[in-house]
Amino acid sequence: MDVIDIVIAKRESRELTDEQIDWLIPAYTAGAVADEQMSALAMAILLNGMTRREIARWTDAMIRTGIRMDFSGLDRPTSDKHSTGGVGDKITLPLAPLVAACGAAVPQLSGRGLGHTGGTLDKFESIPGWRAQLSEDEMFAVLRETGAVVCAAGDGLAPADKKLYALRDVTGTVESIPLIASSIMSKKIAEGTGALVLDVKVGSGAFMKDLARARELAETMVGLGKDHGVKTVALLTNMDTPLGLTAGNALEVAESLEVLAGGGPADVVELTLALAREMLANAGITGVDPAERLADGSAMDVWRRMVAAQGGDPDAKLPVAREREVVTAPASGTLTRLDALGVGVAAWRLGAGRARKEDPVQAGAGVQLHAKPGDTVVAGQPLLTLHTDTPERFAAALQALEGAFTVEQSAPTAASAPLVLDRVA
Amino acid sequence: MDVIDIVIAKRESRELTDEQIDWLIPAYTAGAVADEQMSALAMAILLNGMTRREIARWTDAMIRTGIRMDFSGLDRPTSDKHSTGGVGDKITLPLAPLVAACGAAVPQLSGRGLGHTGGTLDKFESIPGWRAQLSEDEMFAVLRETGAVVCAAGDGLAPADKKLYALRDVTGTVESIPLIASSIMSKKIAEGTGALVLDVKVGSGAFMKDLARARELAETMVGLGKDHGVKTVALLTNMDTPLGLTAGNALEVAESLEVLAGGGPADVVELTLALAREMLANAGITGVDPAERLADGSAMDVWRRMVAAQGGDPDAKLPVAREREVVTAPASGTLTRLDALGVGVAAWRLGAGRARKEDPVQAGAGVQLHAKPGDTVVAGQPLLTLHTDTPERFAAALQALEGAFTVEQSAPTAASAPLVLDRVA
Repeated sequence: MDVIDIVIAKRESRELTDEQIDWLIPAYTAGAVADEQMSALAMAILLNGMTRREIARWTDAMIRTGIRMDFSGLDRPTSDKHSTGGVGDKITLPLAPLVAACGAAVPQLSGRGLGHTGGTLDKFESIPGWRAQLSEDEMFAVLRETGAVVCAAGDGLAPADKKLYALRDVTGTVESIPLIASSIMSKKIAEGTGALVLDVKVGSGAFMKDLARARELAETMVGLGKDHGVKTVALLTNMDTPLGLTAGNALEVAESLEVLAGGGPADVVELTLALAREMLANAGITGVDPAERLADGSAMDVWRRMVAAQGGDPDAKLPVAREREVVTAPASGTLTRLDALGVGVAAWRLGAGRARKEDPVQAGAGVQLHAKPGDTVVAGQPLLTLHTDTPERFAAALQALEGAFTVEQSAPTAASAPLVLDRVA
Repeated sequence: MDVIDIVIAKRESRELTDEQIDWLIPAYTAGAVADEQMSALAMAILLNGMTRREIARWTDAMIRTGIRMDFSGLDRPTSDKHSTGGVGDKITLPLAPLVAACGAAVPQLSGRGLGHTGGTLDKFESIPGWRAQLSEDEMFAVLRETGAVVCAAGDGLAPADKKLYALRDVTGTVESIPLIASSIMSKKIAEGTGALVLDVKVGSGAFMKDLARARELAETMVGLGKDHGVKTVALLTNMDTPLGLTAGNALEVAESLEVLAGGGPADVVELTLALAREMLANAGITGVDPAERLADGSAMDVWRRMVAAQGGDPDAKLPVAREREVVTAPASGTLTRLDALGVGVAAWRLGAGRARKEDPVQAGAGVQLHAKPGDTVVAGQPLLTLHTDTPERFAAALQALEGAFTVEQSAPTAASAPLVLDRVA
């Protein structure tokens, strides 16, 4: 086997053979194929694509570079969710304890945020004392005791993906459907969940800007899940505007607590319930209404136990940023647009996200929304509040928000876009 | 400047700006842009192309990473030749002393062979004592004394190209017209020649398999030369069958000596004279017939002085391989095809070329042809003789020659393809 032949084959739009893929992935993981060779191949894949067969084999080869976890010893079915990443997407926080409160086990092995979409672990880490790093024994113990665990994925799961993802991130080769699908699914399949719901984001704040490409990604991933015996369903959901009223770590924890307390923004509640219903159905759990488990406080009970089991204090005061700056409405009228990407980049620049994976994040930093598209606003009223510990970041955040919202004086009364755009099963 | 933005721009088929190119090339040379980033970009360039403006700027940026030589102090005009590489392409050996004998100065800074086409320095190095590595002072001295010098290009010329070429070689990104053109021309322009003739090979044994792509490469390089004040002309020449009757280092030196002695295969003589006439015209030298300088021995005189000036013994016996194997004609008839690639790969595998740049080459290894397309052959007569010091290589060489030639019993009398296919000026 010669890696250059493989690169040239894909460069010339030929299909890679099973033998080529089975050789390549472990060779890359072991360092026998160099980063510069893999990045050239990744670019060729991005531009020339892979067939369904190639993607399946590629995913399989990545899984086989590591361990596969096994939750069959638990007394309840496992069901997990993965989001492709959106602005203000704190859904895992209320969802995991909610689904656990309904009778499934939720093993969420998560990553950290890179770029303008926040990472679930970063959000949890804004809770004083909470630890993301668990041993396998600790992880099983938390899952058994509380029904849900959110922790850092260990190095043993699909190490090929870990290495390849880091490479793609610095070589302009992230946005490839075959590579995104195989990356996500190799980790989720190795994680060992029995059922999986994918939240594929579509819109300005998502990787996938249009519905057709998002559907292609969803269909690819659903197919990969089924091939590997994981019951997989995908929802395509709107990401043109942020989810809820917050983007930032502690800000999103606070909003999630409102949802767990039976309140919270309508869109966050709607998506949490939609995903919970899919996760439960996929796990074969029927006759339980997740809305009731929010209302009766049982989801909040699981949350408190989950957080405490990982060293967090569920009663601790959440961190608050030292400085804030308010953006006001430039005119009276209807807020017709509030762009997810603009808000996401602003939150990132305020310190909620990281540019490099070694960078720390600020727990209190982020953007708070005082209005959502469709709301009536009055000139001069607060539209957004920016939070940061480092006020020199305000200028760059404000720049990201330039042109990110529109207030129209006589806006036509249009039905707002639905949150759940489609379902792929 | 962010290299990822540059990679994504080219990935999305956008034109790179002058500022991006001017930043990128020195940053890559200095190591601030990583190999894996550059190889992803190279693949995007290979698949999405570059405009004429981008190629010019890219070439310019590569030249500016190193020194430019200056031959204006010589008492005669400089004229150089570059071949894109072919099988049995020993033309530089008779050509450089011939053009010097006609009154031009020929500063040939050459490379070593990699792959199935041989390198000029490897051929010269089969002459006992000859040294490729000269200091700048030595190089000028040889050029001044003999009119021609063939030596290794120093590290000072376009170091960006040296680094990028090594990267492309291992990442499947060699075959890109913008990258080939800028690589060749950055070195030749930095070398400081006043006039340049390009021999762009077309056919099975060449990088460029079809005339349209070869013409595109030639036009790109001629344009780059003119932009930089180098009088540049290109000949497109046939490389479907090897040049002459030998492919291999010492074998080709011996054949070149026949040409310098006034004999030699007709195609080698024809191409040597065609290129000599272009080089002389480009240098403004008129009224000299290079055919006469072959016939009267003056080209051979320059050869002997050139070789001796670099430590070589022009009277030494050339190395001969220890083992040989003969391939015979399978039938009687006309040899209608003898494939350049097959012969080139066979010679390479016999030890005439190297797979990695650290590998040694065998001086005596190679393939000797006993017939050329159009010749009548008799069943059982020798068609090819394979030479090597390491007989275990015969099997792989014979494999490369499978299907590489055709003998037809009643071949139609077709005019053989012309050697010089086109001229681009």
